[in-house]
Amino acid sequence: MTVSLHYLGPQGSFTHQAASAAAELIPDGGECIAEPNVTAIFNAVANGDGWGVVAWESNIEGYVVPNLDALIDAEDVAGFARVSVDVAFDALVRPGHGDLTVVRAHPHGLAQCSKFIVEHGLTSEPSSSNAAACRDIASDEVALGPSICAGLYGLNVLCKDVQDFDGAVTDFLVLAPREQAREQLAQAESNGVVEFESIVAFIPLSTGPGVLADLLDVIRDAGLNMTSFISRPIKGHAGTYSFIATLDAAPWQPQFKTVLGTVAAHGDWVKTLAVYPRRERPNPPVSAWMLPKGGVRLDSTDVSGVRFEPDDDRELLWA
Amino acid sequence: MTVSLHYLGPQGSFTHQAASAAAELIPDGGECIAEPNVTAIFNAVANGDGWGVVAWESNIEGYVVPNLDALIDAEDVAGFARVSVDVAFDALVRPGHGDLTVVRAHPHGLAQCSKFIVEHGLTSEPSSSNAAACRDIASDEVALGPSICAGLYGLNVLCKDVQDFDGAVTDFLVLAPREQAREQLAQAESNGVVEFESIVAFIPLSTGPGVLADLLDVIRDAGLNMTSFISRPIKGHAGTYSFIATLDAAPWQPQFKTVLGTVAAHGDWVKTLAVYPRRERPNPPVSAWMLPKGGVRLDSTDVSGVRFEPDDDRELLWA
Repeated sequence: MTVSLHYLGPQGSFTHQAASAAAELIPDGGECIAEPNVTAIFNAVANGDGWGVVAWESNIEGYVVPNLDALIDAEDVAGFARVSVDVAFDALVRPGHGDLTVVRAHPHGLAQCSKFIVEHGLTSEPSSSNAAACRDIASDEVALGPSICAGLYGLNVLCKDVQDFDGAVTDFLVLAPREQAREQLAQAESNGVVEFESIVAFIPLSTGPGVLADLLDVIRDAGLNMTSFISRPIKGHAGTYSFIATLDAAPWQPQFKTVLGTVAAHGDWVKTLAVYPRRERPNPPVSAWMLPKGGVRLDSTDVSGVRFEPDDDRELLWA
Repeated sequence: MTVSLHYLGPQGSFTHQAASAAAELIPDGGECIAEPNVTAIFNAVANGDGWGVVAWESNIEGYVVPNLDALIDAEDVAGFARVSVDVAFDALVRPGHGDLTVVRAHPHGLAQCSKFIVEHGLTSEPSSSNAAACRDIASDEVALGPSICAGLYGLNVLCKDVQDFDGAVTDFLVLAPREQAREQLAQAESNGVVEFESIVAFIPLSTGPGVLADLLDVIRDAGLNMTSFISRPIKGHAGTYSFIATLDAAPWQPQFKTVLGTVAAHGDWVKTLAVYPRRERPNPPVSAWMLPKGGVRLDSTDVSGVRFEPDDDRELLWA
């Protein structure tokens, strides 16, 4: 028996690609069902109608903050798998198309394919989504969309990979009721998965200097590696914050349990948002050639011998 | 002699509102000039053609990540003022309009005014920006845009504040060459401003457990209050990160200088991105009624007496 996967439609969206990938990856993953908005996805999961697939983090745009906020606030919903999709655009046309004069996509899609549009002398027209542009394409139009759209809407590929820059990736979380998320993770463990990552939300009940440093000391002292971190204002309550950390461990591992126990015992609010098999990542030193322009970096690591230059004053704005 | 303010056009965008507010606020602020993209704004500043105004952080959508990345990487550009704009939409129509059947705005604008659209039975059509929707409006159309657009494009106000939820705010930074940013800040100080905030980017040259905690210990031990924090992957170099912190202090204050000196002496890369007069903010305790649904919060603060409930296992996914 398989479980349906609810994603943000229309068919052919990047979330649809993620849902299709999840259906392949997860043994119980079944039919992909398009939903009109993210609220409907969370409702389907909370009502036990299936699992959800939502965009989580892009290496270009950062967190998809509305989805982050929704998962923090969702009752009885947790992520148990993380799926990456390369955000690449194909230029698609109708079979037997006429002269091509117009290009359609979501405004973000148009912005990410600006060179292609200029080279082909096309006029940009925005659509509500890239998939909608592909679905509604006219015979004098080019639609920019995920490669999946060619097959879905019976279109021909004019050019592949027409985005200005390669390497854009968006990660998606697969969501389930918490009991099912635990079962899926237990199954992954029994299938030999040893290493996991977890996303945890913390809300310290006091505010002021050092609150975050104290929290992160607990994580460091337990030896947990953190790969992503963000603070979020709590909506409608200026001056209050939640913190969302991604850690290289599973919450049932002893060191992680110590962290959760210590934080909870301190009276702070805590919730595990997602746990999923660890992704392979490099762990390189940062070499000077990949640093941004400007800024200050001293060659000496001996504090007593440090000498700042006049340029450093400019970069630090401290004089 | 005044300095021109370069913002992301077209005229009437929320960034234009921010630029107009900055022109009022800053003694030397002059003419507002629309630019076609953010790169052009940074170029204008770097070339000494004036100052720039860019969107920085929204209380709904979070950081405007492309602008954050651009400022980290910009040579000789820093922020010296921060301006907040209430993101509210007016429904605008042409004078002597006909039957109204269509509503136009950027897809985000359409999404934020869904109740108004349903109540008036309008058909949604996306535009490349809210300001463009107002500029190009037809006689049977309603455009959703900032209130400034009514005057700019000679439109009538059909309804004010048609957004689904109030309280959305976007903050903008005013950018200048670093030497001018220092002059502006010195001028603010001589005009009586005592308290400042600063945004600083850090890149630790090693990666692994504890790197971030060690950094934040330095900030806490100096007694500096942090109000916003985010980690960002360094583009094209998986596994490497920059950290961007907003602190309640100026880099020329002794405690802050200690932090910058310690971090630089450790061999890490550091750059002050912006310094601006401190905004008044409340500093409330987080009370239980504003916590998200689910999660764990123990009433006891005595670790030895802590007792977790079965529900807590579900929220933490640790059993």
